[in-house]
Amino acid sequence: MTSPVRLALLGCGTVGSDVVRLLHEQSADLAARIGAPLEIAGIAVRRLGRDRGDLPVDPALFTTDPLGLIKRDDVDVVVEVVGGIEPARTWLVEALRAGKSVVTANKALLAEDGATLHDAAAEGGADLYYEASVAGAIPLLRPLRESLHGDRINRVTGIVNGTTNFILSAMDATGAGFAEALEEATELGYAEADPTADVEGFDAAAKAAILASLAFHTRVTAADVHREGITEVTAADVASAKAMGCTIKLLCIAARGADAAGRETVSVRVHPAMIPLTHPLASVGDAFNAVFVEAEAAGQLMFYGRGAGGAPTASAVLGDVVAVARNRLAGVHAASESAYADLPVRPMGEALTRYHISLDVADRPGVLEAVAGVFARHEVSIATVRQGPAGGGPDAELVIVTHVAPDAALAATVGELRGLDIVRSVTSVLRVEGGA
Amino acid sequence: MTSPVRLALLGCGTVGSDVVRLLHEQSADLAARIGAPLEIAGIAVRRLGRDRGDLPVDPALFTTDPLGLIKRDDVDVVVEVVGGIEPARTWLVEALRAGKSVVTANKALLAEDGATLHDAAAEGGADLYYEASVAGAIPLLRPLRESLHGDRINRVTGIVNGTTNFILSAMDATGAGFAEALEEATELGYAEADPTADVEGFDAAAKAAILASLAFHTRVTAADVHREGITEVTAADVASAKAMGCTIKLLCIAARGADAAGRETVSVRVHPAMIPLTHPLASVGDAFNAVFVEAEAAGQLMFYGRGAGGAPTASAVLGDVVAVARNRLAGVHAASESAYADLPVRPMGEALTRYHISLDVADRPGVLEAVAGVFARHEVSIATVRQGPAGGGPDAELVIVTHVAPDAALAATVGELRGLDIVRSVTSVLRVEGGA
Repeated sequence: MTSPVRLALLGCGTVGSDVVRLLHEQSADLAARIGAPLEIAGIAVRRLGRDRGDLPVDPALFTTDPLGLIKRDDVDVVVEVVGGIEPARTWLVEALRAGKSVVTANKALLAEDGATLHDAAAEGGADLYYEASVAGAIPLLRPLRESLHGDRINRVTGIVNGTTNFILSAMDATGAGFAEALEEATELGYAEADPTADVEGFDAAAKAAILASLAFHTRVTAADVHREGITEVTAADVASAKAMGCTIKLLCIAARGADAAGRETVSVRVHPAMIPLTHPLASVGDAFNAVFVEAEAAGQLMFYGRGAGGAPTASAVLGDVVAVARNRLAGVHAASESAYADLPVRPMGEALTRYHISLDVADRPGVLEAVAGVFARHEVSIATVRQGPAGGGPDAELVIVTHVAPDAALAATVGELRGLDIVRSVTSVLRVEGGA
Repeated sequence: MTSPVRLALLGCGTVGSDVVRLLHEQSADLAARIGAPLEIAGIAVRRLGRDRGDLPVDPALFTTDPLGLIKRDDVDVVVEVVGGIEPARTWLVEALRAGKSVVTANKALLAEDGATLHDAAAEGGADLYYEASVAGAIPLLRPLRESLHGDRINRVTGIVNGTTNFILSAMDATGAGFAEALEEATELGYAEADPTADVEGFDAAAKAAILASLAFHTRVTAADVHREGITEVTAADVASAKAMGCTIKLLCIAARGADAAGRETVSVRVHPAMIPLTHPLASVGDAFNAVFVEAEAAGQLMFYGRGAGGAPTASAVLGDVVAVARNRLAGVHAASESAYADLPVRPMGEALTRYHISLDVADRPGVLEAVAGVFARHEVSIATVRQGPAGGGPDAELVIVTHVAPDAALAATVGELRGLDIVRSVTSVLRVEGGA
């Protein structure tokens, strides 16, 4: 048989351990699929002493010197499952420049500074694969960067963070508030002790940047992504959504558009939004992920599965390992980054969105006229107005859903509404997605 | 710029016309993604005179000599969208042996005799891509043959025929019978004048063979697939399913299993089945397709989108064209067929299934005992029995759902029930899938 393809594994936490386990369990199948066996050359960890249970691997393979491991002549492929910007970037650049293939699950690094990695890969003539960085086990990056390359993607809408989807699903199911639902998620292990990266949308924003880069052949970084988390979503918002036949999801949205001069642009954003229950993303519950793609010719597509967890992420990592190992044996490497389109990323204010706005207003004649006037001044067109039950008090409820308008105009409209005498309070403001 | 990659297009019907249109509309993008422009060298059609509307192509490119076109030195890639076994097989074998890459949407040929094509591809050192052959625009084959190659697929369950899904969705929504729903589908253009290939499950069976081959690294042909269509699904069946919290779908199922000696096997089948409304496949309505994949490490995945139509199919064809054109420029070809596992395909009788059986029985003591005795003799374990409303007459209704058992034992059980004195009639027999 052909001589083995040798891997350096950087990191041996939840995902790394499952990579080791799967490499062991599937070794015969993997060898048959690649045409050569896979072997672990070494595993870089922070501390050698840690108990790693019954991991099926020679303890002598562990090392605390990742750079030394990467530089070894007998290492062909570097698998990085440590995460974070540094030292991961230094390691991967070193590997790629030396012509070693890299498989990584590091979404933060790819979203912050993917360009450096892609440039190093081009320089070293090496493969850079990162299926596991977005939506865990769901085959998504390969479809986007290969299957749909004959088509024109117009919009990608995804639920790409399991923690926030669990929390919002719980709020929807039980009527609980955010704090209570977060507590439940933490108890059940769906939220980390410090949930900031998830609930503030940082994790989803990194994935949005990666998806947008692939979908639009344009370098998009995390800094380009407008980001709002779910900490301010209230039980009242969830109830408003229900009344509209909708549910609230934290969406990442990457959409093609045009600026005032008609030049093509993209907008990339992460925020909670109402989507109708009839939308395929609405039924994505618990910690599942799904990505909805709208393409010119293909129409609507959806990819659904587990977005996190050791085994699902390890599955995506190993799929990439098989691909780069095959390329290596064939003496080729995959098409490098495709960023030819280089579209400008427009600011959130120019993104076209729709708002759902609930207002407590004085229950007297002329109120609707005054409110409608504010919308008109900002050139925001109203789709529906619903007058809520007055409840016997001096107030009435107005629920307004707009047509699509620039986000800045919608935000300014809400700002001016807050200042109106007859508006007691703006009780809920949510964007609406999915053609409700 | 690099010299163009030149395509021979075989067939110019619905899909072929959309391929021509997209090649024209997206030419700048396609060239940027490939690194070279795509050019149409010729289009083989049956008749030259036909009006092809405003197809953006030089009429001089049309020819009625497909073999002559394929053999031309300036043809690099052959795109076949004619369908059927012959003459398509002769053409594609000719192309592949000559080292020309082939992109085809021909599910019937791949399912009947994929081996001949794969062998010709290996012989000629050429690419054979066929994403469009299963589930139209949904990127499915590339995820199966690449993304999940580090994992072990246990089961693939798909809705892969839009016509039958439209019919069953209509029956479910309106309570109509099969004939009436078929008529509606024909009127709306969802069913062809001769709907046999769709409603008898031939189309789905071809796709099942292709999916099973990729999922299990085993050559599976259409002849290996157990096939039942939907012509015998009645309004009463649909009502029974509803009463169970289920809906009826025509499913293609490819599952790993084991024979009596514990050797690994696969079973591949197409038949209508009840699935619970909570299953992700249950909400796949109208003419949409979806494929649900269960893998060891990745867990549950679903791929959803348009399974047919000119533009969606053309999108899949062009995605493949970009891939083979890139390979061509890089001087490589993709990994060939992976059939190393070569698992035996076991007959339907050995497949493990569950049955839902409705019986009209005499309403008298001892009936349940007698019925239960039949199940016990065939070693079929009963999961639930529901005694229907007797309706005041001399009969009662029994609704029985079994646990998993070999299909032959279940079929034999039903056969024996039909012969029992106390059983007036077996009113509905349906398999149950999706863990209801």
